[in-house]
Amino acid sequence: MTQSTIPLEHSRADRACRTDHDLLGDRDVPAEAYWGVHTLRAVENFPITGQPLSTNGHLVRGLAAVKLAAARTNRELGLLDDARGEAIEAACREILAGHLVDQFVVDVIQGGAGTSSNMNANEVIANRALELLGHAKGEYTHLHPNDHVNLSQSTNDVYPTAVRVATVAGIEDLLGALARLEDAFAEKAAEFRTVVKMGRTQLQDAVPMTLGQEFGTYAITIGEDRERLREASQLIHEINLGATAIGTGLNAPPGYAEAACRHLGETTGLPLVTAVDLIEATQDMGAFVHLSGVLKRVAVKLSKICNDLRLLASGPRAGLAEISLPAVQSGSSIMPGKINPVIPEVVNQVAFEVIGNDVTITLAAEGGQLQLNAFEPVIVHSLHKSITHLTAACETLTERCVRGITANEERLRESVEQSIGLVTALNPYLGYAAATSIAQEALASGRGVAELVLERGLLTAERLEDLLRPERLANLSR
Amino acid sequence: MTQSTIPLEHSRADRACRTDHDLLGDRDVPAEAYWGVHTLRAVENFPITGQPLSTNGHLVRGLAAVKLAAARTNRELGLLDDARGEAIEAACREILAGHLVDQFVVDVIQGGAGTSSNMNANEVIANRALELLGHAKGEYTHLHPNDHVNLSQSTNDVYPTAVRVATVAGIEDLLGALARLEDAFAEKAAEFRTVVKMGRTQLQDAVPMTLGQEFGTYAITIGEDRERLREASQLIHEINLGATAIGTGLNAPPGYAEAACRHLGETTGLPLVTAVDLIEATQDMGAFVHLSGVLKRVAVKLSKICNDLRLLASGPRAGLAEISLPAVQSGSSIMPGKINPVIPEVVNQVAFEVIGNDVTITLAAEGGQLQLNAFEPVIVHSLHKSITHLTAACETLTERCVRGITANEERLRESVEQSIGLVTALNPYLGYAAATSIAQEALASGRGVAELVLERGLLTAERLEDLLRPERLANLSR
Amino acid sequence: MTQSTIPLEHSRADRACRTDHDLLGDRDVPAEAYWGVHTLRAVENFPITGQPLSTNGHLVRGLAAVKLAAARTNRELGLLDDARGEAIEAACREILAGHLVDQFVVDVIQGGAGTSSNMNANEVIANRALELLGHAKGEYTHLHPNDHVNLSQSTNDVYPTAVRVATVAGIEDLLGALARLEDAFAEKAAEFRTVVKMGRTQLQDAVPMTLGQEFGTYAITIGEDRERLREASQLIHEINLGATAIGTGLNAPPGYAEAACRHLGETTGLPLVTAVDLIEATQDMGAFVHLSGVLKRVAVKLSKICNDLRLLASGPRAGLAEISLPAVQSGSSIMPGKINPVIPEVVNQVAFEVIGNDVTITLAAEGGQLQLNAFEPVIVHSLHKSITHLTAACETLTERCVRGITANEERLRESVEQSIGLVTALNPYLGYAAATSIAQEALASGRGVAELVLERGLLTAERLEDLLRPERLANLSR
Amino acid sequence: MTQSTIPLEHSRADRACRTDHDLLGDRDVPAEAYWGVHTLRAVENFPITGQPLSTNGHLVRGLAAVKLAAARTNRELGLLDDARGEAIEAACREILAGHLVDQFVVDVIQGGAGTSSNMNANEVIANRALELLGHAKGEYTHLHPNDHVNLSQSTNDVYPTAVRVATVAGIEDLLGALARLEDAFAEKAAEFRTVVKMGRTQLQDAVPMTLGQEFGTYAITIGEDRERLREASQLIHEINLGATAIGTGLNAPPGYAEAACRHLGETTGLPLVTAVDLIEATQDMGAFVHLSGVLKRVAVKLSKICNDLRLLASGPRAGLAEISLPAVQSGSSIMPGKINPVIPEVVNQVAFEVIGNDVTITLAAEGGQLQLNAFEPVIVHSLHKSITHLTAACETLTERCVRGITANEERLRESVEQSIGLVTALNPYLGYAAATSIAQEALASGRGVAELVLERGLLTAERLEDLLRPERLANLSR
Repeated sequence: MTQSTIPLEHSRADRACRTDHDLLGDRDVPAEAYWGVHTLRAVENFPITGQPLSTNGHLVRGLAAVKLAAARTNRELGLLDDARGEAIEAACREILAGHLVDQFVVDVIQGGAGTSSNMNANEVIANRALELLGHAKGEYTHLHPNDHVNLSQSTNDVYPTAVRVATVAGIEDLLGALARLEDAFAEKAAEFRTVVKMGRTQLQDAVPMTLGQEFGTYAITIGEDRERLREASQLIHEINLGATAIGTGLNAPPGYAEAACRHLGETTGLPLVTAVDLIEATQDMGAFVHLSGVLKRVAVKLSKICNDLRLLASGPRAGLAEISLPAVQSGSSIMPGKINPVIPEVVNQVAFEVIGNDVTITLAAEGGQLQLNAFEPVIVHSLHKSITHLTAACETLTERCVRGITANEERLRESVEQSIGLVTALNPYLGYAAATSIAQEALASGRGVAELVLERGLLTAERLEDLLRPERLANLSR
Repeated sequence: MTQSTIPLEHSRADRACRTDHDLLGDRDVPAEAYWGVHTLRAVENFPITGQPLSTNGHLVRGLAAVKLAAARTNRELGLLDDARGEAIEAACREILAGHLVDQFVVDVIQGGAGTSSNMNANEVIANRALELLGHAKGEYTHLHPNDHVNLSQSTNDVYPTAVRVATVAGIEDLLGALARLEDAFAEKAAEFRTVVKMGRTQLQDAVPMTLGQEFGTYAITIGEDRERLREASQLIHEINLGATAIGTGLNAPPGYAEAACRHLGETTGLPLVTAVDLIEATQDMGAFVHLSGVLKRVAVKLSKICNDLRLLASGPRAGLAEISLPAVQSGSSIMPGKINPVIPEVVNQVAFEVIGNDVTITLAAEGGQLQLNAFEPVIVHSLHKSITHLTAACETLTERCVRGITANEERLRESVEQSIGLVTALNPYLGYAAATSIAQEALASGRGVAELVLERGLLTAERLEDLLRPERLANLSR
Repeated sequence: MTQSTIPLEHSRADRACRTDHDLLGDRDVPAEAYWGVHTLRAVENFPITGQPLSTNGHLVRGLAAVKLAAARTNRELGLLDDARGEAIEAACREILAGHLVDQFVVDVIQGGAGTSSNMNANEVIANRALELLGHAKGEYTHLHPNDHVNLSQSTNDVYPTAVRVATVAGIEDLLGALARLEDAFAEKAAEFRTVVKMGRTQLQDAVPMTLGQEFGTYAITIGEDRERLREASQLIHEINLGATAIGTGLNAPPGYAEAACRHLGETTGLPLVTAVDLIEATQDMGAFVHLSGVLKRVAVKLSKICNDLRLLASGPRAGLAEISLPAVQSGSSIMPGKINPVIPEVVNQVAFEVIGNDVTITLAAEGGQLQLNAFEPVIVHSLHKSITHLTAACETLTERCVRGITANEERLRESVEQSIGLVTALNPYLGYAAATSIAQEALASGRGVAELVLERGLLTAERLEDLLRPERLANLSR
Repeated sequence: MTQSTIPLEHSRADRACRTDHDLLGDRDVPAEAYWGVHTLRAVENFPITGQPLSTNGHLVRGLAAVKLAAARTNRELGLLDDARGEAIEAACREILAGHLVDQFVVDVIQGGAGTSSNMNANEVIANRALELLGHAKGEYTHLHPNDHVNLSQSTNDVYPTAVRVATVAGIEDLLGALARLEDAFAEKAAEFRTVVKMGRTQLQDAVPMTLGQEFGTYAITIGEDRERLREASQLIHEINLGATAIGTGLNAPPGYAEAACRHLGETTGLPLVTAVDLIEATQDMGAFVHLSGVLKRVAVKLSKICNDLRLLASGPRAGLAEISLPAVQSGSSIMPGKINPVIPEVVNQVAFEVIGNDVTITLAAEGGQLQLNAFEPVIVHSLHKSITHLTAACETLTERCVRGITANEERLRESVEQSIGLVTALNPYLGYAAATSIAQEALASGRGVAELVLERGLLTAERLEDLLRPERLANLSR
């Protein structure tokens, strides 16, 4: 599992190879591989998770989009001839269309602040462009990964920019999933609009409300989270392309940053803007820390909601049994007929993972030094997991749980009628001390609040009935 | 330290006492205490931190402001007579002016979702109002903590509202401290505008920049944090006053929520708004989780900046020694003359605390159940610590460190002249491969890049001098 | 709140002052203060929490014990004359007896890796010793904070050693509190030994057990935690006294480390040992990270137990209502008669705080660099809070909650009799498929499992009765 | 990435299928699949990470080992006939030998407390056993996943036991990797035994030491971590097999737990023991929380070491440049010749991930309720990642970094000779005040300590030379 096997297979003796060269010397690379010596060394250096970059499709496309925008800008500024420029753009378009993704083989957790991800892209694009130009892979004198594909760029502006483009795309997926979940809860809120039940504070019976109100809060809270998430997403539309190594823009020509941002905006369809201070933007992980904080907020809310669903559905006989969750699989290998709340449970677990990821991201961000944060890859990987797992969790929660929830109306109504909490509604008419005395006697004797109030002659039957109408208690008129 | 001693002293046999009563029975309370039986039991139940509520002045004032607004609203709506109303308001104004703060004796970490904080306020205000009306403390038949001071209210709307008012005030303090820190860094950026130095990525020499650019990033990053913090503060201007127990507004008369919000806005001078859905607002900790996430972001940035300052000031002889921090105390009990970066160090520690507090807040928020979060007190306490400690940390960092930083200009300029990283600037003219070869020889031989380029005849001396001008390298013209 | 006021009061113009000197120059110090210029500067530099060192009594005593052991060792090795040595020892003994604690005024969160805590101790001890020798405070030519009180020492061995001594003492308190909590649960387990109830997995009815078994698990799990905590405490009996600045023992004479460890062991009554490698021991925070991890484990368990107690006591009518927690205060300012599980709630909150503290400690430990960890003060402060708050939480949980818990036996027995989960016990006799069918019909029809089994003629009445005996189901015989 | 594609491919219309049945009805399953309807539903319910169980080979083997031990015990106790028992055992042995692993297709993050993992195993083993008995897959009347493979078992004892067996195996891998890393550091410590350098505290020059001492601390600290890790591993040798659903052992015959533990111990070669209280053991996640705390400790230490390595290797010209790390890849896409510390950087990132995983595990453990923790799968997944990634990180750190580190001896020696910190060694002879004065003048003038001491006539040249011998300063004789 912790071995990315692709390069190892390729290094077998019986494979056809070409020789690639870098400052450390020569290395054999499989003839059919589009990646080259830098990628090979990176795969060997970082055999950590076994998950290659290709598992993050948004990021691979983000890298291709940035390389395409850079090539177009370099051509526009006269730094790159049309033949090479067109070949590079064509290779990038292929990747954007879903080809060559399996050539992104570097591990998702990698040293080097993303250099290996950028070089993996440079090498794949260069070799594909060479092919398109009629050359063999590896003939870098015609088109070079660094001199042409990476022209006017540095990992330190390419990688963060590609990551931003990828992350925006991921958040769009999540926003969609959250919207569907919000809708599902809103539909249930409407369906349960008149189902009266006891509200609870601190797990103790409080005062009446409706099940519709309860489910309505879930819709509202998710709606608020969507707003916050959209705001956080805005922050990552700010890119540092043109910053090059440390933000001073060394080796990028005048006008490069503006044009590259414009081309990238067109390629991706996103309203990207260039950061005002590129040096700050190159080292700062603030927007990612912020986004992770908002994802954590989403996770906390989803987890709380799922805790509630599991509690309200507890039973079937010795629990609250106020609602029933749809049965989606048998619940036990030993207990026949047992049905468990497995969908909320998996959402809880994703939430816990997201909260843990936030700590990882925090540590990585805090560890940045001087002009760069070397730990951006683990930030990217953690964000990617948080976003995609939350998206999947919302989808399964919506489709396999919320949409099928039913109410146990009879039990809910009984719980209100038997409740001692009704006495709160009489507080303004009896005073806190007298109401407390009624509540104490009800609890000790097992009798009802209304019965005791009438027995003590504190209110007339008509007045009492009016005060205790469920619709009044739950404030349905407001 | 973990014993709040006030009530214990007061319970001595030789003290004059009055008798107070609640649903659990009678208890003696010191005659001079403005708090009553609920507060007494809470102090006994929660001897956790030894820090009483009075240590959170913003919160005490927030509670008084809410009680004042509620009394005014109750009078306006005809629920409270003028005599009692005026007495309650007068008592609240005294607290707002700084009196009676020592009567808030419940521990800052408490069970009960804030009920004991609310009841502490109800009792203190009731007893002070009784005095103002010419009655003895404890004569609740004339004016009752629950029936009059808490009229139309519940802990579950009073406490969160008071907390929001308090938190907004705390954030204003922090925003001020951050603004002063930003200014101090901006001043240094201007002062060091022309001081050329080597930029570093991954702790390795990269390309030249100026010390002014480096300090400028700190000002900018703090400025961004202030914007985020202000946005997060906006979210907590939304209150749930009028929600009462679970958000249905039971026992609050029509029009109460609107009027109370208006009065509280006037009392505090804050643009408060009532939440659209009071049930959701009563149970939701989202805004606090969000705020804590932003505070964590601030902490991460401050910690990164302090790490940089400590690194740049390392030495005096065996370190980078690029800047000097002002000496504010002798650094060692054994090493004479040693000066340590104690101010950045204390800021780092506050940042670590804030990051830990964020986890505490996350857990507490996740643990909320159904219509209420029972763990709001620890959320409030953690936020309070994060905000006040960050404020103090920024102040000491500004005044005792940043303002006195000086540059070691000679050393900085030398580091650029000797640098191999200069070769990056020649990349577009020599190509990546040739430039790499120059870099390798420079590293191996200890010789300079310019010397080697000239020796190899790759560029003319004039061209080379122009390409390596520090101002060009640091992109000062842009 | 964030201002430690002691030195500010003392700096008033009308106070009598003495002049103290350090490498930064002269400063006025209040004449009556035992602390000196280093402490004064530290108080000014670190106005973070408002909590002075004196709030950590174990640490103040730990510092005094180390200083006493060092003085004794220095006399023994001939480095310190008897007069000065005796005076220093006498001052230390006074502090150990509880005097002069208010002179430890530096903030608990401080830069400088503990130097200010050590110097606060050096100055207080020196000035008290000067008094005992008949000199005025501040006459350091007779007895100097650094040259005599700190002789053969550095903050970097004194402070970690004092912290260890203090932490061991704190853990002993916690172990005692945990033992009492374990006992309280064990007593309840015995009391509820024959009370049959439904066990639950994933909040769904599972198979029968007894309430005694349920409470027994709490006793057992706490017992295991005590073992782990005791093991972690063993690790912090290893000290680095004699390491001086970085562990090389520079300026400590041969034999110093061994003798000082022996004297400190005698003074404290603890079986302390000197670390094998003092350089490693001086920089390593591993034992504190480890201890914090174990405290987090304790917190997780306590929180889970309190979650269970709150759930089992939910009600009084619309919840599980299997047990009742003792009423310790009225639960609501608006809902008469409401009783809330405030004691478990406060324990939950302490647990969340401890978990957050663990993250703070982790970050601080990770941030150590080269030969020292500069952030030990926040580690110490966080550990101190975790230990003392957990101790207080256990005490209140034991005395104000667990000891008074009662069982609702009737309701518990009914829940077993009506349970569908009984069918699991018939699994071996009916097979999983047939048992599932019975369970499904029971759930759909609301009928009982036994009734359906008999109706289908699957088992005889006698056999069935035997298989469903509660004692058999709960496995009480084993 | 978040879609586990195996079952979707298999559900294509043109595939041959068999029909499988559970309490929710009939479903088509691909004819060649060894898994059945429960697994199918679980794959559909939990499309979270895209990582199937098969990526955790230790866990797959753990499940097979438990099933083998259970079958053997059931035969021994006469509950299972020899034919079925032998077929089940044979199927388990195949899995242990590495076959059928691809049939474990349920997502690693799953609801249901592991039921789907257990049922995936039950189904695969049943179908393979059916084949071995000459039946078709799915003919469960001959051999049933629940009635025979899961006989006397529940997910709630099988899954935690399998997880423990798997985790012990993973830790053995990690212990091996840590031992090799410790050795590599110890070798370097020996190699650098006489290389004198300045020690640093708080990044400021302190007193001399050797590079060998510095590297020796890394070896020692890792050795201590190995001890702690081994202790934590001991705790997870305690299993709850025989507990069945909630620990009461319902449906497991007398003697089952003991025999099953014995057989599992033989199969795995591990000294397993049965927990004393099976109810507690079934719900308790304490040992996993504890283990994760120790893994976090390991991560903190590794991260600190890597921080040090990166700092000591900073340069090549504008940094400390005390050591050189081996070049393993080119460091930049834009800066020719740049070499970055990519191996320590990747280890830092793994450490941050492990620390985040610890928070995830903590939350999941805290969320357990009553007789079971429903969130064990995310605990298991997080532990698995922490253990395997740490193992990989240690391996690459050992082989690709530590073994190739070289010292820049000349620079190191110079830093000692020019150091002001030398004055500390003169402290006992000059006194703290005079030594401070020397240090201040040295710093201000740029002159050397020795020069100033001689100029002031404080010591003779011979005495001074002796006191400042590097071997004496670094305490090499001790």
